[in-house]
Formats: sequence, C-alpha cells, structure tokens
Amino acid sequence: MGLEHLLADIVGQAHVLTDPGLTASYETDWTGRFGGRARAVVRPADAAQVAAVLRACAQAGVPLVPQGGNTGLVGGGVPRGGEIVLSTVRIAQLAEVDAALGVVAVGAGATLAALQAAAARVGEDATLDFAARDSCTVGGVVACDAGGARALRHGTARAHVAGLEAVLADGTVLSRMSGLTKDNAGYDLPALLIGSEGTLAVITRVLWRVSRRLPARVTALIPLASVAEAGRVLEALRAHAPSLEACEFFVRDGLEIVLAHQRRRSPVGDAAVYLLAECAAAADPTGELAEALDAAGVRDAVVADDTIGREGLWALREGHTEAINAIGIPHKLDVGVPLARLGDFLERLPQVVGAAAVTGEARVIPFGHLGDGNVHVNVLGPGPQDDRVDDAVLELVVGLGGTISAEHGVGVAKAAWLERARGADELAAMRAVKGALDPAGQLNPGVVLPL
Amino acid sequence: MGLEHLLADIVGQAHVLTDPGLTASYETDWTGRFGGRARAVVRPADAAQVAAVLRACAQAGVPLVPQGGNTGLVGGGVPRGGEIVLSTVRIAQLAEVDAALGVVAVGAGATLAALQAAAARVGEDATLDFAARDSCTVGGVVACDAGGARALRHGTARAHVAGLEAVLADGTVLSRMSGLTKDNAGYDLPALLIGSEGTLAVITRVLWRVSRRLPARVTALIPLASVAEAGRVLEALRAHAPSLEACEFFVRDGLEIVLAHQRRRSPVGDAAVYLLAECAAAADPTGELAEALDAAGVRDAVVADDTIGREGLWALREGHTEAINAIGIPHKLDVGVPLARLGDFLERLPQVVGAAAVTGEARVIPFGHLGDGNVHVNVLGPGPQDDRVDDAVLELVVGLGGTISAEHGVGVAKAAWLERARGADELAAMRAVKGALDPAGQLNPGVVLPL
Repeated sequence: MGLEHLLADIVGQAHVLTDPGLTASYETDWTGRFGGRARAVVRPADAAQVAAVLRACAQAGVPLVPQGGNTGLVGGGVPRGGEIVLSTVRIAQLAEVDAALGVVAVGAGATLAALQAAAARVGEDATLDFAARDSCTVGGVVACDAGGARALRHGTARAHVAGLEAVLADGTVLSRMSGLTKDNAGYDLPALLIGSEGTLAVITRVLWRVSRRLPARVTALIPLASVAEAGRVLEALRAHAPSLEACEFFVRDGLEIVLAHQRRRSPVGDAAVYLLAECAAAADPTGELAEALDAAGVRDAVVADDTIGREGLWALREGHTEAINAIGIPHKLDVGVPLARLGDFLERLPQVVGAAAVTGEARVIPFGHLGDGNVHVNVLGPGPQDDRVDDAVLELVVGLGGTISAEHGVGVAKAAWLERARGADELAAMRAVKGALDPAGQLNPGVVLPL
Repeated sequence: MGLEHLLADIVGQAHVLTDPGLTASYETDWTGRFGGRARAVVRPADAAQVAAVLRACAQAGVPLVPQGGNTGLVGGGVPRGGEIVLSTVRIAQLAEVDAALGVVAVGAGATLAALQAAAARVGEDATLDFAARDSCTVGGVVACDAGGARALRHGTARAHVAGLEAVLADGTVLSRMSGLTKDNAGYDLPALLIGSEGTLAVITRVLWRVSRRLPARVTALIPLASVAEAGRVLEALRAHAPSLEACEFFVRDGLEIVLAHQRRRSPVGDAAVYLLAECAAAADPTGELAEALDAAGVRDAVVADDTIGREGLWALREGHTEAINAIGIPHKLDVGVPLARLGDFLERLPQVVGAAAVTGEARVIPFGHLGDGNVHVNVLGPGPQDDRVDDAVLELVVGLGGTISAEHGVGVAKAAWLERARGADELAAMRAVKGALDPAGQLNPGVVLPL
C-alpha cells in the first residue's frame, strides 16, 4: 500500500491533502523566501495519530516537516521538497483553565490568540504575546521558544511550559501533563524539545502556565536622539518601575515605512530612535512610569492608558514586519546582543551591511526588544540570494558576544551559521542528540543542524 | 603514567586525595545508606581542569562521580566502588551581582548559603532555599533541580538558571553565560543537563537569576484536624494571599520527634496535621494572611513576623530530617502527588507501608511541601534492606498519577523504579540521550538509569 493510503487509514481521507490547490498554502512561508513541494499534507487529530503517521513515514523512508500556523521566518516549518507536511491544525483543543494550579492544557494547533482569550475569560493572562498571535500556534511557539515583547518580564515560551506532550520520531509519546511543579524522575526530555524546531519531536499538547491578569496598563512612546539615550531610559525604567513589562524600540526610517503603509501621521516629534514602554500592574502604574521618565530627563512622550490609545502606539511597533514586507523581500535577521554592546552594534550595523551588499543599495531597518537586547534586523535592497549581507550581520553579532538567533529559531536560514555561533564541539553534541532521538533523520531534515 | 599521576599533573598533587583518612568524607553519604570506596578524589579548579580530568579518566577507562556538598539523599553523589570522585569544592567563585540583568555568576562548588548571602548583600534574593543550604552546592542544586519550600512561588532550580557552563564526558565545554533572555541558536543542552544528576555532564558554573528582596515576611503555624482541612486552608491562602511563598506541612508524630530532639515544647495545641505558611511582600503581608485564615475558618494559629519567631517555627519543619535521622536510618522517599489526590495518598500511606514491612514495625512520618504536592515520606522501623517498603510507597504514588522523585533526584536509590514511572519507551529515549553524550558510560554510572 502506498504511503498516502496508509496515511489516509490513520487520519481519514479528508485529511491527506495532495491537490496542489489545497497544499499550496502549506508549502511556502509567508515571506516568500522559503518553501518547496510537499509530497502530501497530513492533518492528524491527536498524539496517537501523530505517532502512527511518524511510524508510517519512517517505514516509507519519507521525511516529515511539522507545521503550526506557518508564521515562521526562518524556513523551519515548510517543506524543502518531497516531505510530508504534518499540520497540527486539528489538534486545537483548549481545556478549561485550572485556576488553582494556574495552568491550562492546550492543543499544539490552537492559536496563541485562542489561548490568550481562554485565559482572559477567567481573569488570567497567558503573558506571552507577539504580532503573529492570530495565526501562530502554541505548538510552534513552544517548538521555537518564542519570546515577544513581554518576555522581558515573563520569560520566553520555556517559562510558560508547565507540561508537555510530544511524539518522538519512533512514535514514542512523551506525556508530562501532571502539572507537578517538582518532578525529577529522569531526564527532562520536554525541556530539550522546547526550541528544537520540530527536529526532535512533534509537540502535540502543552500545559501552559498562566498568571493573574494585571488590569491596569499604561504605554509610552518616547522620541530620543540616540540608542545610548534609549539605554539610559531603560535603566531608569528598571530602577523606578517594577511594573515594566515591555521596552521596545524602532528607528526613524522604520517608523516612516510603517506610517506610509498604515496611512497615519506620527503621534510624536521626529527623532532618531523611538522607545515604546509599557507598564502593567494590579493598580494604575502611571505614577511609576512618570517617575521613571522624570528620572531619565524625558520631557517629550506620548502616554496612553486606554485600550485604543495603547493599541495605536503598539501598531507602530508591530506594523514593522508587514510594512517592510509590503515594499520588498527583506533579509531578516533576529539577533541578540548583550545590552552593554547594543549601542555599538546598532552604530556599526549600516556600515557593515553597506560594505557587504553586492546587489542593490542596502536600507537597514532595525527594531525590536530593547529590554532584552533582541534586535530584528531587516535589510531591503540587496537581492534575496545576496547572502553576504546576512553573513556580515551575523559575524558582527558573534564578535560582540551575541546570539545569531534570539527568538525566531535557526530553521534552514541560519543552519549553516550554527557551527560558527556555538563551536564545532557543541555542534557535534547537538548532532549526537539528534542522532539518538531521530537516528534516520526523519524529522525536519536540514532545519537547525545543517545537512 | 598512572591515572593518579595524570590527575596530579592537571590539578596539582595536593588536590588528588587517595589517603583513606582524607577520602572517607567523600565516600559515604550523610544518611549512611549509600557509598563505596573511591579510587581517588580529585578537586579541579575550573572547567578547563574538569575537561582534562574527564579526558584522562576516559583514556584510563575509569568512571567518574561528580560531587558537590555531598548532601544528596539518593546516593547520586558518592562512589559505588572504584570510581574517581570529582569534587567541585574549589570551583566556588562568586561574581558580583549584576543588578541590571538580575543575575549572578557562581561556581558550582559555592554553597547555596554563600549565594544567598551574596544576593542579600545587594538587596537581592536568590529565592531558592532548603535546609541543607549551608553545605549543599549550587552545582548540586542545579544537577538535581532542587526545589525546597519556596518553589511554590519561585519555581525549582530550573527557573533560576539564566546560564550554565558544563563539561561533557568527552571534555567539551558548553558555555552559555551571556545572560541573554532570548537565545535560540540550536538545542538547549543546558536545559537537558538541569536535573540529570551528573550523568550527562559536570556543571561548573551557573548564571543564577535573582529577584528584588521582599523585606516583609510573616509566618503562621496552624494546627488542623486533617489533610483535607489543610487543603482547604491552602485554597484560601491561594485565593486571598498573592504574597504566599511557602505552604508546608507535617504531622503529630513528626512534630513530637522534632520537639524531643530539639528539647523544645510545642508552640501550638495538639493536632493531627500542622500547616506552616509564609507570606512575603514589599509591604507587610499580615493583612493578606489574616484574611486568608479568616476565610478558611482558622481560629487557632501562631503567627510570627520577627526573624527569631519565624525561625523558631521553621525549625520545627526543617528539623525533621535531622531529628528522624538521630533515632534510626529511615527509608526516605521524596514523592509528588497531584494536590487532588494528596489526601487519599496520606490516608492510605500507613496501611500500605505496614502491610509491606517485613522487618520491624513501620513508623511512617510524612512531611513536606503541601503547596506543590511534594511529600517526604520517612519510614522508621523496617531494616535498610527491606526494599518492599519503598516499593509499596512508590507503587501507590504511580497509581495516583504522581512522581517517584520530586526534588531529591533518582540517584541509585530509585533507578530501578524509573521504567515503572516513565514507561519502557521513554526510558529507552533517555538511554539514547545518555549514549549520545556519554557513549562509554563514564559519568556517574548506575545513577538515574539502571545499569
């Protein structure tokens, strides 16, 4: 029996897609940079079906690419050519929030927005958030250890995982869903799976840690003359505002692109750098925020404490990805640099990129999470194949003691860079772990570890 | 050249101990249940020396047991016979606390108390604590993913690790000490090492996450008629006291043993179960605590908000281990049971143990962390070799969906139980990971995974 028939026996004929019209949306990432033809798209309903699909693919020697909401930016969730795509779209059950334990069991295919809404309905907060919330899935969030703006206070996905269910390449189902805070019986394999980008297992369910919702929020957009000044404001925020939850930044050129795309006028004066800070607390944190801005000598800022006003300010930061994509296919790098070196990094960036670009004039648009040193470097101009631009940025990052992947993952986009970032010995250890859990290399080949 | 000479060349002659008078304290655990002769004890000064020691041992085919403060309770840090013991005692450097990032770099051999003191000196809090604080080391704390009473609020060791340096069996040094919140470049090998009990790597340094110290603390000791009543008080505490930081329990028999050992009188009335709760906040949490106790209908409680009074109450809880050990060698089990099943567990425990004991009359003394379902089951009476007692308790735990090891680790004591707890498939996955990172089985053989 052919693989497609075996798969149909497992998940039902309706959930094995082979028609190009139906598979197309699973085969290319939304930036248009990555993708390939899938042999088929299969949509299992639970861990048992995932295990059976994995066993069937192993038997047939056909590799498999796990896919959540297909919002990834590094080509880690789309086929390269000929793989089975395993979509978690049907594994989207959301249990009731267990308020006593502060957790909620959620299927890997549920969107982050659905999880957030389920928590909010009972006065709780999923505390992780980023712009792709309506499409990205909880499984993908955990597989990539996503972060977002609020990781500054609440940590990345890792800090939210109180339990995990996942299926290894050989069909072994790991289930750690008891919610016990303390459970040291053997190796913490779930901890290893977080951030492994579907190369070691398919995540099927997550026990997500929630917190009591903090109802009072205030947001400020602050125009500043330099990154160094932004650093000083961040320091003041840390010192005076324990309620600080996010501290984002973008630059003049990025803001102009966003304003043009959104057909809006700027709510603040012209500046080289913009800092977007948000405080959240049980009671109004406006005083804390004002005190911090005062201590930092900030005189010019737009402050919003109502939902519409706050969302308007956030749209300027979150609109960057879409607005930039609307005017070209950017080189996208997601790097982390220790705070002490961030100013140095941003200052040298345009020159380093300019020198490296072979095709087209480079337009460098950095933005991101000032509070944790995570910068999204977008470069417009050089053609998509002009890899020297990416190399130059990553070289600069490694030289400053930073990371080549902060929250987007390695995918296929940066796999070739992993050895330079971690060293040959550590890469060998990673390969050994991969070989132990997926000896035939069935799961997401080419992602994270270079082929 | 013999192995001892090679080791002396690496760490210096003074740090290779072979004299039985010098090695004795490294060879037996303090409960007296576990131990064996070491071929030698070696005390390297840093990761480079640890790597060289590991390579020399691999070359000679001699296995190695990493040891911190030797406060373990499951035989995971002492030799079984003929191994080299690698003591981290000299890797005890404490860097200055980086208040901006909220982290401090600490050597694996520093004691937990030294780390706590370093944090306290600058107004920060290491937020993890348990009774062995003066002897146990940070490396051991992380290797066993220790928890303690305050894990209820702050999580186990895992939640405190912002970075790690460790040496794999082949001498590869993993160093993730940048402190970047977001760093997804490849597999999170440090996350796998946490809780692996020295079987996958030797942890040499930790970047420990600290929090602002909460200066206002209040502690209450509450006598109650049953575990069910204790559960209701816990629920009220969770609902009314966000400042709740610990919720411990012990029973009448345990309290009597502690009082006799400490030559004290009980500060409260006689009861079947005692609950010890502590709240901590920036401002006085007495009101929150009182409100919770009121809501739970508690009329009888001793409350202390001064250091001496609080320490007096805590000594009753923390004194259990020492007091019990002073009257016999107990069977010690460290299990976790979901809160909803905890009453059931404690009710059935004496009968299950009584039926299983072959030698001696069983005296069951449970105590521990009510808030996270972590129970330390101590059994006096049955001889040390009477394994049926341990089996009966663990069988009961697994049947209730609990864990056979909550915070002490698996060690050699529970290795034979791991398959029953996790299943053959998951155990096979753990063995594959061990084989990948330590193919010759050099590191702590017999610990976690049964030989």
